[in-house]
Amino acid sequence: MYSTQELIDLRDFYRKQLLDDTIPFWFPRSIDIEQGGYLLMRDQTGNLLDDDKAVWIQGRAAWMLATLYNTFEKDSKWIEGSKSGIDFLNNHCFDTDGRMFFHVTRNGQPLRKRRYFFSETFAVIANAAYAKASGDSQAADKARELFGKCIEYASNPSLLPAKFTAVRPAKGIGVPMIMINTAQQLRENIGDERCDEWISRWITEIERDFIKDDIQCVMESVALDGSIIDHIYGRTLNPGHAMEGAWFILHEARYRNNDQHLIALGCKMLDYMWERGWDKEHGGILYFRDVYDKPVQEYWQDMKFWWPHNEVIIATLLAYLMTGNEKYAQWHRLVHDYAYSHFHDKEYGEWFGYLHRDGTVAQTAKGNLFKGPFHLPRQEWYCYKILAEFLEK
Amino acid sequence: MYSTQELIDLRDFYRKQLLDDTIPFWFPRSIDIEQGGYLLMRDQTGNLLDDDKAVWIQGRAAWMLATLYNTFEKDSKWIEGSKSGIDFLNNHCFDTDGRMFFHVTRNGQPLRKRRYFFSETFAVIANAAYAKASGDSQAADKARELFGKCIEYASNPSLLPAKFTAVRPAKGIGVPMIMINTAQQLRENIGDERCDEWISRWITEIERDFIKDDIQCVMESVALDGSIIDHIYGRTLNPGHAMEGAWFILHEARYRNNDQHLIALGCKMLDYMWERGWDKEHGGILYFRDVYDKPVQEYWQDMKFWWPHNEVIIATLLAYLMTGNEKYAQWHRLVHDYAYSHFHDKEYGEWFGYLHRDGTVAQTAKGNLFKGPFHLPRQEWYCYKILAEFLEK
Repeated sequence: MYSTQELIDLRDFYRKQLLDDTIPFWFPRSIDIEQGGYLLMRDQTGNLLDDDKAVWIQGRAAWMLATLYNTFEKDSKWIEGSKSGIDFLNNHCFDTDGRMFFHVTRNGQPLRKRRYFFSETFAVIANAAYAKASGDSQAADKARELFGKCIEYASNPSLLPAKFTAVRPAKGIGVPMIMINTAQQLRENIGDERCDEWISRWITEIERDFIKDDIQCVMESVALDGSIIDHIYGRTLNPGHAMEGAWFILHEARYRNNDQHLIALGCKMLDYMWERGWDKEHGGILYFRDVYDKPVQEYWQDMKFWWPHNEVIIATLLAYLMTGNEKYAQWHRLVHDYAYSHFHDKEYGEWFGYLHRDGTVAQTAKGNLFKGPFHLPRQEWYCYKILAEFLEK
Repeated sequence: MYSTQELIDLRDFYRKQLLDDTIPFWFPRSIDIEQGGYLLMRDQTGNLLDDDKAVWIQGRAAWMLATLYNTFEKDSKWIEGSKSGIDFLNNHCFDTDGRMFFHVTRNGQPLRKRRYFFSETFAVIANAAYAKASGDSQAADKARELFGKCIEYASNPSLLPAKFTAVRPAKGIGVPMIMINTAQQLRENIGDERCDEWISRWITEIERDFIKDDIQCVMESVALDGSIIDHIYGRTLNPGHAMEGAWFILHEARYRNNDQHLIALGCKMLDYMWERGWDKEHGGILYFRDVYDKPVQEYWQDMKFWWPHNEVIIATLLAYLMTGNEKYAQWHRLVHDYAYSHFHDKEYGEWFGYLHRDGTVAQTAKGNLFKGPFHLPRQEWYCYKILAEFLEK
């Protein structure tokens, strides 16, 4: 259990880490004054490794900066920083078919477009948070229009190029999960009448098709009818991802006046996947597991990545604050202590992204195609916020 | 230096490992008597993990079995085993556009087709080796026809779907490398007039565009004019792959009566990339390195994979036998001892595929989408063969 003083200390710790350590690693130096957007591929010390831009992370960083403005302090540096990303996204990151690129050059020429629509979901949350910060109705329109497209893609995958043939159709939990979070951000920043109903549908889909009570598991992918695909890729679990989904659902429970069904659902997902993901030997969250404990395809399956730890820190803290269940305080303490002692770079700030199973650093980059100012600052911001609200009561 | 007795012992060791340990792990149990082809996705003990079939490995296994028939003993089990794969490839693994699939179900329904033509190159060597073993002229025709297609794809990448846009064109060493080996196998099994000239062209391309003497490096990818692409992905080196390329070129030098220029070229590639790839702290070959020692994108860059060790065992032994240079005997001893003490599974046979940097096993599967009976048995077969020929002289 956490005492009130411990919760106060945690609240202050997350705020201080966010504002004095994490955000200063990235900003202001990463704002690309010449070409717009952000230069985020940085080494341990902060030197630029590559001036290319990952579109996902351009959107995520713009969202984070606008969110700091909306929720911490109305300092023009945050909103101006956010606008740099918003303009870059809108001016350079869309293909002529309306879909977004994945990887572009510093000046916005496209290098790669992928089959997925995650660039679009991050552009929704960026535009929504920026619209709230600035009152810019064009950004609000853009967020709503793109959210509509995301609903179409999520509802009809045949609109996007397929990676696999139609022989053994499958679906991933990633789509309903990202859509829940996208809709929550859109709704809570600028409001959108579509969100409540769609969030309910995506939660229903997760509950019906991905959660397996008989084996106490949240599947990462399943057949279209929810059955387990008993092949290597179909058996592969991503516990950190499932626990991220757990807190999206707990967040929804909180929004819906502590909806008891959703609290039970989110806690169940957390319970099942903590058991599968927590490394009892070395600590930390294992990246992939096989549902039947067989070897998985991905050889790096037992590495510790930064982002599952951010998501599980949120999930365990939120579960604890919502239920008071002692177990979640214990788990939160375990994952928080593991993460801040192994991932945090005490010398240059921010976190390393990739540890070996035994907790040693495998790779020192702070930013690359997939890592940037998102999971860590979001965790520190969100944990600060829920602790502050809890302690106010 | 190796004494003659040590070389005899090594020759006998590789033969024994191949015939008493590696091949018996896979065969006869992996031949799919019901559906044709091979069931190769197996766990440590040999139990089936998945009955899907990886098309690359169907071709590689058919090549290996026919090669055992051609070079060890004319036992019908080898040629019949090879035929099972040849028939499966020809009956199930081609799309209607003539390109091949990457991943199919047990009964040959396509699950995934990729942008590359490696399935095709392995079908060339499988058909060529089987044609030599059986005298089947249809298989010989198929090998030659497919080799022609591979030349077209290699010469004109726009025939295949692109992963990247045309903004920053690049090319990989993988294409000229795989084509050299494919042509060597075709030529040495059934003869083909195109091979010598094309092999010379691909070696020229590697020498001109991928080898950087000023920084003593073999690049994994470069711009079309051979310049280094100074972005994370362009700087990423794959030392084990480059050392595999080194032995393809040493093999060519041997075929061309010890062509001195090619010997120097192959040894240079080995020298440069041993220096970059050998892990001086833990032993073994590191998977990826950055050309300027910056962090690479791939978080698992410091893992030890089985196949680079197979390729470097061949490269160092061949370099030693061709040059007598003491250094290569030392390196061969280092990589051989590391590999057989860390990868080899003394309990169930064959090798583990994936070790952590410190040499502990990360993943126990013996076969999956990318690992099967190829790099290890090829290494044991090839090393046996060159040692036997050397000792006969």
